[in-house]
Amino acid sequence: MTESLATHPDRLLPADPGTRSVARTLLARVQDLPIISPHGHVDAAVIEQNTPFPDPAALLVTPDHYVTRLIHASGVPLEQLQPGAGAREVWRLFCESLPLFDGTASGYWLRTQFETVFGLPGDLSADTADATFDAMTAKLAEPGFRPRELFKDFNIEVLATTDDPLDNLASHRALAADPSFHGRVLPTFRPDAYLNIAHPSWGTNVERLIETASDGGTGYRGYLTALENRRRYFVEHGAVSADHGVRTPATLKLDAAEAERLFERARSGQATAADRDVFEAHMMYQMARMSVEDGLVMTIHPGSYRNHHQPTFEAFGADTGHDIPFAVDYTEAIRPLLQDFGTAKDFHLVLFTLDETVFSRELAPLAGFYPSVYIGAPWWFLDAPDAMLRFRSAITETAGFSRSSGFIDDTRAFCSIPARHDASRRIEASFLARLVAEHRISEDRAHELIVDVVDSSPRRVFKL
Amino acid sequence: MTESLATHPDRLLPADPGTRSVARTLLARVQDLPIISPHGHVDAAVIEQNTPFPDPAALLVTPDHYVTRLIHASGVPLEQLQPGAGAREVWRLFCESLPLFDGTASGYWLRTQFETVFGLPGDLSADTADATFDAMTAKLAEPGFRPRELFKDFNIEVLATTDDPLDNLASHRALAADPSFHGRVLPTFRPDAYLNIAHPSWGTNVERLIETASDGGTGYRGYLTALENRRRYFVEHGAVSADHGVRTPATLKLDAAEAERLFERARSGQATAADRDVFEAHMMYQMARMSVEDGLVMTIHPGSYRNHHQPTFEAFGADTGHDIPFAVDYTEAIRPLLQDFGTAKDFHLVLFTLDETVFSRELAPLAGFYPSVYIGAPWWFLDAPDAMLRFRSAITETAGFSRSSGFIDDTRAFCSIPARHDASRRIEASFLARLVAEHRISEDRAHELIVDVVDSSPRRVFKL
Amino acid sequence: MTESLATHPDRLLPADPGTRSVARTLLARVQDLPIISPHGHVDAAVIEQNTPFPDPAALLVTPDHYVTRLIHASGVPLEQLQPGAGAREVWRLFCESLPLFDGTASGYWLRTQFETVFGLPGDLSADTADATFDAMTAKLAEPGFRPRELFKDFNIEVLATTDDPLDNLASHRALAADPSFHGRVLPTFRPDAYLNIAHPSWGTNVERLIETASDGGTGYRGYLTALENRRRYFVEHGAVSADHGVRTPATLKLDAAEAERLFERARSGQATAADRDVFEAHMMYQMARMSVEDGLVMTIHPGSYRNHHQPTFEAFGADTGHDIPFAVDYTEAIRPLLQDFGTAKDFHLVLFTLDETVFSRELAPLAGFYPSVYIGAPWWFLDAPDAMLRFRSAITETAGFSRSSGFIDDTRAFCSIPARHDASRRIEASFLARLVAEHRISEDRAHELIVDVVDSSPRRVFKL
Repeated sequence: MTESLATHPDRLLPADPGTRSVARTLLARVQDLPIISPHGHVDAAVIEQNTPFPDPAALLVTPDHYVTRLIHASGVPLEQLQPGAGAREVWRLFCESLPLFDGTASGYWLRTQFETVFGLPGDLSADTADATFDAMTAKLAEPGFRPRELFKDFNIEVLATTDDPLDNLASHRALAADPSFHGRVLPTFRPDAYLNIAHPSWGTNVERLIETASDGGTGYRGYLTALENRRRYFVEHGAVSADHGVRTPATLKLDAAEAERLFERARSGQATAADRDVFEAHMMYQMARMSVEDGLVMTIHPGSYRNHHQPTFEAFGADTGHDIPFAVDYTEAIRPLLQDFGTAKDFHLVLFTLDETVFSRELAPLAGFYPSVYIGAPWWFLDAPDAMLRFRSAITETAGFSRSSGFIDDTRAFCSIPARHDASRRIEASFLARLVAEHRISEDRAHELIVDVVDSSPRRVFKL
Repeated sequence: MTESLATHPDRLLPADPGTRSVARTLLARVQDLPIISPHGHVDAAVIEQNTPFPDPAALLVTPDHYVTRLIHASGVPLEQLQPGAGAREVWRLFCESLPLFDGTASGYWLRTQFETVFGLPGDLSADTADATFDAMTAKLAEPGFRPRELFKDFNIEVLATTDDPLDNLASHRALAADPSFHGRVLPTFRPDAYLNIAHPSWGTNVERLIETASDGGTGYRGYLTALENRRRYFVEHGAVSADHGVRTPATLKLDAAEAERLFERARSGQATAADRDVFEAHMMYQMARMSVEDGLVMTIHPGSYRNHHQPTFEAFGADTGHDIPFAVDYTEAIRPLLQDFGTAKDFHLVLFTLDETVFSRELAPLAGFYPSVYIGAPWWFLDAPDAMLRFRSAITETAGFSRSSGFIDDTRAFCSIPARHDASRRIEASFLARLVAEHRISEDRAHELIVDVVDSSPRRVFKL
Repeated sequence: MTESLATHPDRLLPADPGTRSVARTLLARVQDLPIISPHGHVDAAVIEQNTPFPDPAALLVTPDHYVTRLIHASGVPLEQLQPGAGAREVWRLFCESLPLFDGTASGYWLRTQFETVFGLPGDLSADTADATFDAMTAKLAEPGFRPRELFKDFNIEVLATTDDPLDNLASHRALAADPSFHGRVLPTFRPDAYLNIAHPSWGTNVERLIETASDGGTGYRGYLTALENRRRYFVEHGAVSADHGVRTPATLKLDAAEAERLFERARSGQATAADRDVFEAHMMYQMARMSVEDGLVMTIHPGSYRNHHQPTFEAFGADTGHDIPFAVDYTEAIRPLLQDFGTAKDFHLVLFTLDETVFSRELAPLAGFYPSVYIGAPWWFLDAPDAMLRFRSAITETAGFSRSSGFIDDTRAFCSIPARHDASRRIEASFLARLVAEHRISEDRAHELIVDVVDSSPRRVFKL
């Protein structure tokens, strides 16, 4: 294979020559715009401390469950893909496994990184594993491959991280105070482990939370106060959003006494699974109330069965590739929250889904009426070319281009960020080019719209 | 922007040149066929009395929740989009908001109306709002813009309205008796407010119904007799169908005693939400029975959470843009009805959905076996180019072209009717052209099929 | 109509000329590969005894509920499509009804058979019904049209049948022992009627099973032993898989005592509908355990409401065209089974669905983690060009090309096998060609992948 896919100027663009030529001009309009990443999982300390990445396996394989999961499916035990297995050995396994990724989104991101970040051929193979391991390890030791240099090279303007409510945000503070660093690295308030009473550390989390941040309040009242205080702390450190990974999109307004009873039952360890669901639904309502008050954009990510394979979870922990989506219902579930806050001034609520069926059926209709509701971009499993085209096709005819969040990379793989945003821009260009080719929008208008969806939408929706 | 989208001869046709050229010849075959609209919400009195439309806001904005909803989502309070807000002011807001509609079905219909009905540029803007308001107001005062003239210009052959069971159908009668009017304006029996015991006026509706039309019968028996009588009255006035907006597609055969008990419980104000569902399901069964007897085509529209935002409902009433779809299950729900009537002679049952997933999974398989079942065309949120293509792709491989209802515009926006049917014909041509280009059907056969889906299907399915 | 669709070299290939030209070369790569059919419903005795097919109606119409269902939907009573109605009369009705099949998968298969198997024009019609009946009847009497000759002409290498657990597999044994027969005809263990306690003959089936195969064991223990023994018998006769048509994908591990209580309750005729579901779920768990032990690939086909129209079932029996799909949930349902066997060595579990929504949402994520899980190819209602393209688009970006089963024809219509596999190969070529045209995979790699999906996948997944 001699052609390069990762750097082909027409990669991901539609095959029809007329449509492709429109797509090219649209893409050119946004190709050099800075990257805005309002939700992701990069560690702020990595940027702040600017420590070199150790080796290609630690950079691209062991921490990325998008990657390890498919190698695992091919029969490789996860043990062999752990940091302890030896970086070079992991890298070899990975190179052998690369053909599995053909046609996948991960394959596209990986190949693009090899070529554009490391100057390697896009198709590594078992034969070249050792050589590429050495070449990449050497590169990673160069000053130009330090996180801050890459941050600049990648043209990142805003990068949001995902943080524990009790995090002191020292790295974020240091970066903001550092005159030599020009990007914005923003924290995101992510309180799942403080709201989900079934979380293994919920009890101790809540105890620490109240102790640390309740202004002396106790019990359920102190808990709410502490959450409000920590949100404020995040706002003061630049946070623009609060993110919620919930089982379902259920929301519920309990009266204070009932909420308090549930809270105390949970603290005494006697809550049931039904209690868990009710309390989480109620706390989503509370989080919306707080967002209305403190201005944090509220994002909801429901519908994933976390840690589906218990033996793997026990051996390797969470985020090891077996979170599996299931069907969700937003229309009835989100209604209690929207009754009270759906038209609240400046409230922004971004609804994500892993269940594509709700895009046309529920999210576009909701976002096409409620000023607060935005349709979250295709996320996790759906952040791929065809899925992103299906998304646009599903929502646009009802909600137009003004009601979606803009691209969300949601990644912990720092070096994949440019490839992901590049793919998204190519798909936006492809979709708009089709509408132009079908005489559904004018080419001039498409030029405005691509800037809107790539650049203005995330700024507007995430209040950047 | 100088090119006109709304009048471009290739608008909505596929980009691939070979496929487009087939689509053009298919479209030419049906472009001038008369419009058959077997389900919609135009008021018969508007046609009968032939009163001029007052102004563009009253014509295109205030009554159309497809339009007001997206402007509301952009942050404009609904107050400012009410008739009371001043027609010119509403029109200005609307013109400012037009860019929101790019890529939506409503945007296409609006632009087409501006150009083809009013001879204006398709892209109105805030700058030209006053001028277009005046120009359109002037046009609307011209004799050529009276409803009956437009009816003729639009080449409408059949227009069905949606009517209360106790409506005296005077306008329909007058139009049928008027030798100077050549169209058919047919009533549709729509008994939702008489079948849904949770409807706010169910009690008084039923009282009036029994009083007026039960031939002296009382209670549940009188209620059924009165419904039968009113259906007969509609048939005598040209009705071809009875339409049912239900929460779910559930159907159920209760024995008479149990139905009577439920009915009386509801009349005494003691029915529960579960009673509501059971009674509605039972009445769907009864409606099917009556359709088998009196020949009215039965159409079912389930799966919309009506009036999702209670505060908006309280302030502005129903049909104000926040009916939100949810998932439906037809296979089990419709079974009780189909057990007894699925193969009944001349029974026609048209099943609509807002949940696209049932097209390939349930509706095509049902309509591909039961002679009574027809697949309702994409409706509301789905009556748009991409969604209509997804519909054809989802149903055709199982059910072919003979089992769907033909296009349904379902509109209360009279001037949008030609644009909607035009869009539908272009999409049918596009879909068939792709099958021709992929050598899946012959071009000759495609020419027959496009006439069948555009013209013969609605006549056959709605017994016109 | 003079052009031939069924033999057009570009049939089913994409319209875009550049993409089509890639698709052609990909198709050429696999067009002559042998047919591997790991799941279907041809009767082994037909091959073994090599009896001529009697007439075209018995070959193509009366036994094929794909065909009779759509003719029934058009208003023809099923009585007129039964063998008893007279072969020539059935054939006439069928020829008149052929236009109904335009655009359907069945239409494609039928037309292809007429042309490529019988040398007739693809478009039969009412006018030519008698002539084609005679011509085909004459052909079917020729030696070249005997099942074994066709088997060879069709280039079938492996054909799996579907068999009752107590079948003695005499035909399979005879074929395997016959040196003049070069194909492989493999039995498939299909125990539905022994696991579903609501099956009308479950009681007598289980009695016979225990009597025949339990090694003297009784009750629930004897039942499990007998199932294990019969599976072993199938393995000894070449079976590679056990197939399960279940209501839902539910799985459950009961303790032995509880399972025994349920089993006995069922035998005494006192089981409830809930018992049925629980027992079936438990037996799926047991079947997986046995598959881990004996190596049979486990395939699951859930989500069909069998015999939806009771009056038709009573008059004409099962498999008469009214099995209707409904929504399924795999993620939670399959979890108990996967907890214990999801990573078991050499366990292969192929998950089929009639509900397309689970492809991207559940099956690709599951198969992209669990080494045991494979995504079943689009089956029944979905084994058609557009649906197969939607399938590839839905799964590939998450699971790549290595995690799906390969094409499954699942047919009882022997002469349609080549047309079905041909259609599938054309669609695989079309999908891969688009990825090449969009620079997502290289053309060289696409040539490897098409061989993998057409030939290597079914061999690997079904352990052939």
